[in-house]
Amino acid sequence: MLQGHQSWRFKNNPVILSAATIVGPDEGEGPLVNDFDIVHGDMSLEQKSWEKAEKMLMEEAAKLAVKKAGITKEQVQFYVGGDLMNQIISNSFAARTLSIPYLGVFGACSTSMESLALASLIVDSGSARYAMAGTCSHNCTAEKQFRYPTEYGSQKPPTAQYTVTGAGAAIVAAKGDGPVITRATIGRIVDMGIKDPFNMGAAMAPAAVDTIQAHFRDFGTKPSEYDLIVTGDLATVGYNIANELFDKHGFPINQTTFKDCGLMVYDVDKQSVQSGGSGCGCSAVVTYGHLLKQLAKGEYNKILVVATGALLSPLSFQQGESIPCIAHAVAIENKGASA
Amino acid sequence: MLQGHQSWRFKNNPVILSAATIVGPDEGEGPLVNDFDIVHGDMSLEQKSWEKAEKMLMEEAAKLAVKKAGITKEQVQFYVGGDLMNQIISNSFAARTLSIPYLGVFGACSTSMESLALASLIVDSGSARYAMAGTCSHNCTAEKQFRYPTEYGSQKPPTAQYTVTGAGAAIVAAKGDGPVITRATIGRIVDMGIKDPFNMGAAMAPAAVDTIQAHFRDFGTKPSEYDLIVTGDLATVGYNIANELFDKHGFPINQTTFKDCGLMVYDVDKQSVQSGGSGCGCSAVVTYGHLLKQLAKGEYNKILVVATGALLSPLSFQQGESIPCIAHAVAIENKGASA
Repeated sequence: MLQGHQSWRFKNNPVILSAATIVGPDEGEGPLVNDFDIVHGDMSLEQKSWEKAEKMLMEEAAKLAVKKAGITKEQVQFYVGGDLMNQIISNSFAARTLSIPYLGVFGACSTSMESLALASLIVDSGSARYAMAGTCSHNCTAEKQFRYPTEYGSQKPPTAQYTVTGAGAAIVAAKGDGPVITRATIGRIVDMGIKDPFNMGAAMAPAAVDTIQAHFRDFGTKPSEYDLIVTGDLATVGYNIANELFDKHGFPINQTTFKDCGLMVYDVDKQSVQSGGSGCGCSAVVTYGHLLKQLAKGEYNKILVVATGALLSPLSFQQGESIPCIAHAVAIENKGASA
Repeated sequence: MLQGHQSWRFKNNPVILSAATIVGPDEGEGPLVNDFDIVHGDMSLEQKSWEKAEKMLMEEAAKLAVKKAGITKEQVQFYVGGDLMNQIISNSFAARTLSIPYLGVFGACSTSMESLALASLIVDSGSARYAMAGTCSHNCTAEKQFRYPTEYGSQKPPTAQYTVTGAGAAIVAAKGDGPVITRATIGRIVDMGIKDPFNMGAAMAPAAVDTIQAHFRDFGTKPSEYDLIVTGDLATVGYNIANELFDKHGFPINQTTFKDCGLMVYDVDKQSVQSGGSGCGCSAVVTYGHLLKQLAKGEYNKILVVATGALLSPLSFQQGESIPCIAHAVAIENKGASA
């Protein structure tokens, strides 16, 4: 149900019954390697194109999430999914394979939480017993589509980000064991006029800050309520800008509980990932892989995941447009954490 | 709430408080000209690019729908929108202008009813007082992106379809005067192996039939319950195939109450539109322009709009993939029609 202006409180507390994450070799060399279900050693997944490899990542994550939930794919009533590809083909083709009624969504890298928020709304409102949220990205498909094909060997500035090769899927259910989804805040578009597609973090940071502040305004609560507030893929540049904006606004966020998935998925100092990770897959594999395990261990009891997205297209960039950005937030907590 | 396997029954009957449609010159020469709010005489809308013109169509439709609803855009809590452009830039950039919390969706031409179904779910579940559904397409942006730039002068086979230049937006509200949204059925992806992007109607027809049959299975009712069942953009080729499939399945649909927006928006015999209209804007302007007026006049009391989408990308086509298709259905009726 509605909370404040742009947020939802899920009064029936839909459960994340299961989740699955599949990643590529670079993510397998990062610090979260043990939190992923499958780490592929080859970015091609033995497919003929990068796009087919990305689709396969999504299919594997979806199938494994269904299996881990102990249900059949026929029991999953709605699949809410999207990705960075033109016409979100990775998810549409995966939805063809899965044959689950499908709602395609697009919020660039914010798609991970957009899809989870909508799947939660569907289940919370009694409109499904089981819904799946899924998203993915692939480093080579994203480079090819948004910048230059990897094979071209173009150099990048240090503000650039490295698209995660990975897919994450979660089964949201009306009942069952698992962490619960309690809140969501849907973001507005914020565009500060940045036009450099090699500096997405700077473009996205104000959108993340806008959504986080809206979340606390709508719920009338404070950041200290959460054990962790984690943005999707601001990486080094965007994360620092977000902190500066919070300081400037006098917003009481504690830097030790404010993190960024783009800085968690890689060892930014050692791996060649420029400013850090990005892509729909970034927040998806960190949330569904690492963070859910931390919740299960009791390391965290209540977290807010704020996935960030840069909604540009290569064409809008070529036509001189700046980069509209958005962020969507979803709160996940252990049962009873708010009791 | 859930009805059957893949459908929703909106128990609070959200209202379409207002709607607005903006079209281009070709649509202005069609038989529905008097049903549109604004008919532009120039496809460029005096913008520097076709893409900027498409964005402007969407902004005009959204602003006019808000105005007609007698509310402010600040009262609209969620904007559910999408289009055919890569990274759905028309809607994302319109959402930047409007500054309404934004949920980007993509279902190719089925986006019109995907967005309306989700906006209805949001309002019906008490998650918003006002939500907007919007979608658009532009003939020249679609030709340029999916096939050849119009300026290239390439010839088309008669099975091809002509993308509608138009935008439609609807304000869905918890209360107020207007037709109500009572049901939705979310489609599965159906792919019969067709690979020809100049024959989308044939590719989409089986998806339309699948969703229509699912709708009646889920609600345990018959096509005769509706005064009109209208598909999104099958056009001549697809419409005939859909009729053949219904015949083959022994499905009791009455041909006089089964229509297609792609055949309604143009005079297919007189205008140079090949098989008929297509694009997200097609079902949007026919539904929000023409059909809502027919409901208001009492010509219809209860209709089912089944928007159809071909989820290919130019890249998936180039890589030899067939065309995955989908259809989403939304039932709109005059208050008391089902009493």
